[in-house]
Amino acid sequence: MMADSNLIIRNVKVVTPKGDSARRGSTMSELSVTEDASIVITDGVITYVGPSDDIRIEADVDYNILDGEGNVALPGFVDSHTHLIFGGFRPDEFEWRLKGDSYMSIMERGGGIQSTVNATRGESLEALVEKARWFIDRMVDMGVTTVEAKSGYGLDTESEMKMLDAIDTLARDEETPLSVVATFLGAHAVPKEYKGRTSEYIDLMIREMLPAAKGKAKFCDIFTEKNVFEIEDSRRFLTAARDAGFKLKLHADEIVTLGGAELAAEMDAVSADHLLHVSDEGVRRMAEKGTVATLLPLTAFALKEPFAPARKFIDAGAAVALATDLNPGSCFSGSIPLTIALACIYMNMSIEETITALTINGAAALDMAGETGSLEIGKRGDVVILEFDNFRMLPYYVGMNCVRNTVSRGRLVK
Amino acid sequence: MMADSNLIIRNVKVVTPKGDSARRGSTMSELSVTEDASIVITDGVITYVGPSDDIRIEADVDYNILDGEGNVALPGFVDSHTHLIFGGFRPDEFEWRLKGDSYMSIMERGGGIQSTVNATRGESLEALVEKARWFIDRMVDMGVTTVEAKSGYGLDTESEMKMLDAIDTLARDEETPLSVVATFLGAHAVPKEYKGRTSEYIDLMIREMLPAAKGKAKFCDIFTEKNVFEIEDSRRFLTAARDAGFKLKLHADEIVTLGGAELAAEMDAVSADHLLHVSDEGVRRMAEKGTVATLLPLTAFALKEPFAPARKFIDAGAAVALATDLNPGSCFSGSIPLTIALACIYMNMSIEETITALTINGAAALDMAGETGSLEIGKRGDVVILEFDNFRMLPYYVGMNCVRNTVSRGRLVK
Repeated sequence: MMADSNLIIRNVKVVTPKGDSARRGSTMSELSVTEDASIVITDGVITYVGPSDDIRIEADVDYNILDGEGNVALPGFVDSHTHLIFGGFRPDEFEWRLKGDSYMSIMERGGGIQSTVNATRGESLEALVEKARWFIDRMVDMGVTTVEAKSGYGLDTESEMKMLDAIDTLARDEETPLSVVATFLGAHAVPKEYKGRTSEYIDLMIREMLPAAKGKAKFCDIFTEKNVFEIEDSRRFLTAARDAGFKLKLHADEIVTLGGAELAAEMDAVSADHLLHVSDEGVRRMAEKGTVATLLPLTAFALKEPFAPARKFIDAGAAVALATDLNPGSCFSGSIPLTIALACIYMNMSIEETITALTINGAAALDMAGETGSLEIGKRGDVVILEFDNFRMLPYYVGMNCVRNTVSRGRLVK
Repeated sequence: MMADSNLIIRNVKVVTPKGDSARRGSTMSELSVTEDASIVITDGVITYVGPSDDIRIEADVDYNILDGEGNVALPGFVDSHTHLIFGGFRPDEFEWRLKGDSYMSIMERGGGIQSTVNATRGESLEALVEKARWFIDRMVDMGVTTVEAKSGYGLDTESEMKMLDAIDTLARDEETPLSVVATFLGAHAVPKEYKGRTSEYIDLMIREMLPAAKGKAKFCDIFTEKNVFEIEDSRRFLTAARDAGFKLKLHADEIVTLGGAELAAEMDAVSADHLLHVSDEGVRRMAEKGTVATLLPLTAFALKEPFAPARKFIDAGAAVALATDLNPGSCFSGSIPLTIALACIYMNMSIEETITALTINGAAALDMAGETGSLEIGKRGDVVILEFDNFRMLPYYVGMNCVRNTVSRGRLVK
């Protein structure tokens, strides 16, 4: 890793969306392309991007130099939905599911989210951090420069705060090779201790967890789903979270059409995520409100579910983001290349829309589109350089990693 | 790369199929597992594999040491069907196809196989070799230690021989980090110069190309398909190839049910490949004859086609191999992790069957099951060490590369 964050990237083709908010509808396909370009990053922030002939650098600054050899430079990818922190693994359960075992039978054999909750409760903060670093190295290898990480496998105050502290440790450590954003997801499931007493668990979260999470997490998220947190439960919790100063996210309409998308729009959530079974009304309201639709195709792929209706959102004028949903249960994958393949081949998104969804719209899903997600002056120096001089190689080279270099805040981390 | 090929791999869990021929039917799921194991590779060949307590090494040999840290050791993967050598790329055509453009309209805009033929004819042997090395590095990163490479983008004697010479250059170069096997595929398509004169092109191949390819290629392959090389054409060509001493392969029943599988069995082909539209009779005959069914799920995935009926083959007692089909047209991907994901999630193959299909059965599809494809004394020292101590992580970690080390003929190449 380079020692400092002053970097000149020369000899690249800059390909980027523009602006400081989500790209919606047809604007998702508008990428700016600059041939023979350079990018100057000073103290971690982009101070020049444009034709190499007009390059302006700061006097009295020592820059490292990176030669892009004519290849494409994109904004670093933003993975805006992950469950990065967890104890244990669940490979056996994955196999049982492929053999057709039912969810209930898997639960009875010790699988399901509760098994990760048990493992996570039993892990030290240090062990959770160490494990997350392993995944972060793989993210950086695929060009991710900003990752969101959720709590939600603690489901008691102490364990949830341990998870948020693990995320915070990664976020504050200057050696962490990407930027980390924390989300409190105590409302991931009703823990076994509160079985049948959902309302009391919500009381506990509002009374104990939200105050404890304040300052540790930027977002509150909830798994709004039939027989988990229904619409009324969700509205009550999200209102309290919003009143406590959190920005909001929802796991919405993943398994059945419940109205999670509509609730996200109503509550001014920054994003609603999953959305495999969103209603047309939900699409319309999210488009109207500018709620980012964060789609997670790896999860649908791993579960053999139909993909979320990306085109419906885009054609309705909504903003679509793509993220991995890395987690030990439904989707143990953080593959950006496979996400791109699924979006372009199976969700009918163009490569321009897919790039936008993984950059500026991912940033918007984290309420950070003013900070990262595009290659523009004033944005963080988060850059990906591909192995190729043509961004259309990204979907064409199916499921393969095209990232040659990753630059995070001006540091060469791959 | 290590200087020599004497290596002790210690502290691994050895997971391997056994034997020197393809594993068929229910035996495909039989893997041998040895905990606390070591592997000794002397002069590129396995001289011991088994419990570390009983390890036997050769006296007077200096071994390098690799500590597997308790992780799984598998046989190196065999990618038994690739079009590794080609000029140019076709990303625009990939995008046109996703937009629904017809094959004919793509051909008219300069796409299709003929565009790769034109580019390949225009490339030097050195350029073809250099490009292939780039792909080989990525294969080794994913644990491939043996790759088959086909000609078939030359379609004239000189260009086909240039392709085979490129493969031969890679195969003979000691710096190449894996083993390379050559297949002559002049019968990949009828070149534009012979449009409407298929029989004359077959005459040319038999008269000029087969003699020229002798000694350069181990296999002859043909694209047996409606309106390309029909059954009668294929039988005539394959008979000549067999008489000339080549072993046989077929691209069979990929687009329509034509009887390619039956022909493969009739001709004693080593493998028939693709087989998306194989007939039940074709399955039965291949099982009876022991013709390896080489399935290529990445191609089906990239083309949004249904997957080949892996279970039908296995349940009929046939041997299934899996390969990538890396090529610049229908399937520009060499992803072993995605191949594993598709086999386990979408083709109902167990992980044991999938490992067998990528190792000993891939070797059998190259008539090399006596040389590689399992971790046994006398086999080549081709080994993969995973990042994990459980081989069930391979399908569970969806689309992600689990390979920590690759060893080719005793050399640590990753």
